[in-house]
Amino acid sequence: MRRVFNFSAGPAMLPEEVLLQAQAEMLDWQGTGMSIMELGHRGSEFKVVFEECEATLRELMEIPKNYKVLMVAGGASTQFAMVPLNLFNRRQKADYVDTGIWSKKAIAEAKRYGQVNVVTEIEKVNDLLQIPDQNQWSLQGEAAYVHYTPNETIDGIQFHWVPKTGDVPLVADMTSMILSRPVDVNDYGIIYAGAQKNMGAAGITLVIIREDLIQEALPYTPTLYNYKINADNQSLYNTPPTYNWYLMGLVFNWLKRQGGVKVIAERNRQKSQKIYGIVDQYHDFYFNTIHPSCRSIMNVVFSLRNAELTPEFLNTALEAGLTNLRGHRLSGGVRASIYNAMPSEGVDRLVDVMVDFAKRYG
Amino acid sequence: MRRVFNFSAGPAMLPEEVLLQAQAEMLDWQGTGMSIMELGHRGSEFKVVFEECEATLRELMEIPKNYKVLMVAGGASTQFAMVPLNLFNRRQKADYVDTGIWSKKAIAEAKRYGQVNVVTEIEKVNDLLQIPDQNQWSLQGEAAYVHYTPNETIDGIQFHWVPKTGDVPLVADMTSMILSRPVDVNDYGIIYAGAQKNMGAAGITLVIIREDLIQEALPYTPTLYNYKINADNQSLYNTPPTYNWYLMGLVFNWLKRQGGVKVIAERNRQKSQKIYGIVDQYHDFYFNTIHPSCRSIMNVVFSLRNAELTPEFLNTALEAGLTNLRGHRLSGGVRASIYNAMPSEGVDRLVDVMVDFAKRYG
Repeated sequence: MRRVFNFSAGPAMLPEEVLLQAQAEMLDWQGTGMSIMELGHRGSEFKVVFEECEATLRELMEIPKNYKVLMVAGGASTQFAMVPLNLFNRRQKADYVDTGIWSKKAIAEAKRYGQVNVVTEIEKVNDLLQIPDQNQWSLQGEAAYVHYTPNETIDGIQFHWVPKTGDVPLVADMTSMILSRPVDVNDYGIIYAGAQKNMGAAGITLVIIREDLIQEALPYTPTLYNYKINADNQSLYNTPPTYNWYLMGLVFNWLKRQGGVKVIAERNRQKSQKIYGIVDQYHDFYFNTIHPSCRSIMNVVFSLRNAELTPEFLNTALEAGLTNLRGHRLSGGVRASIYNAMPSEGVDRLVDVMVDFAKRYG
Repeated sequence: MRRVFNFSAGPAMLPEEVLLQAQAEMLDWQGTGMSIMELGHRGSEFKVVFEECEATLRELMEIPKNYKVLMVAGGASTQFAMVPLNLFNRRQKADYVDTGIWSKKAIAEAKRYGQVNVVTEIEKVNDLLQIPDQNQWSLQGEAAYVHYTPNETIDGIQFHWVPKTGDVPLVADMTSMILSRPVDVNDYGIIYAGAQKNMGAAGITLVIIREDLIQEALPYTPTLYNYKINADNQSLYNTPPTYNWYLMGLVFNWLKRQGGVKVIAERNRQKSQKIYGIVDQYHDFYFNTIHPSCRSIMNVVFSLRNAELTPEFLNTALEAGLTNLRGHRLSGGVRASIYNAMPSEGVDRLVDVMVDFAKRYG
C-alpha cells in the first residue's frame, strides 16, 4: 500500500491512525460481531459512541455547559438556511461579513428568509487582499446575529482575530478551521462546521449553539432544520449518519492523543509558515495575493509568476506523491490545504519540490 | 472475528462481502493512495464512483430514462418535507395513506405545508390488522400527489399490490423495501428510500423522480431541499456524503452479483415464509396480528402468547448469535428484520431457536 500526501481542500486527508482503526473495526466493533454502521442508533452500543464523541469534543474545545452540541445530517450548507430559519423569528434581519465564496453562499440563502446587511467585504490594498478592520464595518446593532466565515478556503484568507459584536450573537462557519487552533466558545452564539476537512467524512455537520439561541423557528422550517427539535432529541430525532458520527469521534480521540488543540495549532502554524516562507523567499518565482495579516493557516494559496509552468509544477509534485494541489477553478494557481491531518512530512516534501522547481525553472 | 446475525430494523446488517471490500480499500482506493472518504467530490476518482453507482441502480431497477436519480444527504425523513415543499406549488393538497408510524410522520410534516387528506387507515378485522382495499379509500382526484409507505417496519405490514392513482403521481417511501422485490418504476412519480436498511450506511437518501415533477418549489424551500437544484447539479450542489454514496455503490454491485432483484426477491420470500410458517405451525405458542395478505417480507413481527417468556426467548436467541430481535418499543414482542443482506443461514438458525423454544416451554 502506497499512501500519498493529499492536499485536497475537502473532503480531505484523514489521520492514518483513524483510517487504520476504522479499517480494523469495520466488521466487528468492539467484539459486537457487527460493524458500527450496522448498529441501531438507539441501541446501547451507539450510545457509547455518541456520548464519548461529545465528551471528547467538549474537552478539546472547552465548551461551556450552556452550549449544546448538535449533529446535523449533511454539509455545512444546511446551516446557511438553518441559522436564519431558527434565528429570524424575533428579529428578521442579520449582519453578514463577506470575505469570499462561502460567505456569499451563506448570504444568498439568508436573504431568502429576511433582511441581510453586508457589513464589509474584502478590500484590495497594494494588490493584496485583506479583511477590513472592524471599525470600518457597518454593523446594525439591531441584528438577530452577525455571521462570518473565519477561514475562506478558495482564496486562502483567514481572520486572526474575533469580531466584537456586543450583545448580538456571533455565528461562525468554522468548517475549514474548526479544531485547528484554540477558540473561546464564549465569543460565539453558534459555531458550525462540516466534518470533511478537520473532523472526518462528509455527511455530518457539527453545531455548537448557546442554549438561549434555541428558540422557536420560522413556521415553515422543515422539522429536521429545527434546532429545538434537534436539541430536544439529542440529534436523534431521526436516524443520524451513524458511521460519519463514529468517524468524527475517532478523529477527536486522535486529536486528543496529539496533545489537543494548542499542540496542533502550533504544528499548523509551523506547517503554513514553511510554505509561505518559500513563497516569500522565492518571490520572483512564486507569489501570494493575500495580505500577510490574513493569510490562511489551513489553505495556503499561491501562484507561479509564469502561469504556464503551473501544470508542470503540479506534475512534479504528483510524481513526489503530493496530490490535489491544483488551485480552485475560480482562482487558479496552487492550493495546499494543510488541515490537522496533514503531517509535517507532507509539507516538508512540498517545500522541497517548491525549492527545487524554483531553482530549476527560475 | 465472530460475526453475528443482526436482525436490527435499521441501521441494519450489511453484506459481509461489502464490508470486506470497504475494509480492504479503506486506506487506498484503487491505487490512489487515498481513502474514498479523502477524495474531493468533484474529482475524476469520485466521478467514477457516483456514475457507476447510478448505472448499476438503473440496471437493477430498470429505471426509465425520464426519471432522474438524486442522492440527498440525511435520512428519508428529509423527504417528508421535500415532497410537499416541491410538489405543492401547483396544487397545495395531497392524499396520504396511513398504514403506520412512518406514514403518520410523513403526514404530520406535509400538513405544515398544505392540505392533507388521509385516504385510508389500517383496519382491524377479526383481531388482524389489514390494509383496506383501494375501493374503500377516499382519493381526491385533484391532489398534487398520493403518498404511501409500501412497508411499515414497526408493525411489519406491507402492501403486496400497488395503488392505482391515475394521473395523480404516486409517491412511495420505500426505505424498508427498496430493491427487495421488483417494482415497476413507471407506476410511481417519486420513489425515495434512506440507505440504512437495504442499501448501505445511514446518512444518504435515494430519490428517483419523474422529470416532469421537478418543478418550482415553494418559495421558502431551503436550497438543499429543492429537487430542481439537486437535479441541475447532479446531486453535487454542495459536498455530498461521499463515503455513504460509495458504500451504496458497493451494495448495488453485490446485489447484481447475487443475480439482481428477482433473485433476491425469491430469497426474501423464502426467508419470511420460514419464520411465518413456524409462527403459524406453533400458533398456540407464537402469534402474529397482521392479516396474511399484508404480512411484511422485510420485518417479521410476532409475539409469544406468554409475554413473560419474551426476555428468555431473546436471551436464547442472543446465545445463538442472533441479535437485535427485540420488537419496537411501541409494539413489544419480537421483530426479525430480514433485509437483503440477512443470509438464509441466519433465518434458519432463528427458526431452529423458535422451534426448540416452543417445544421446551410450550
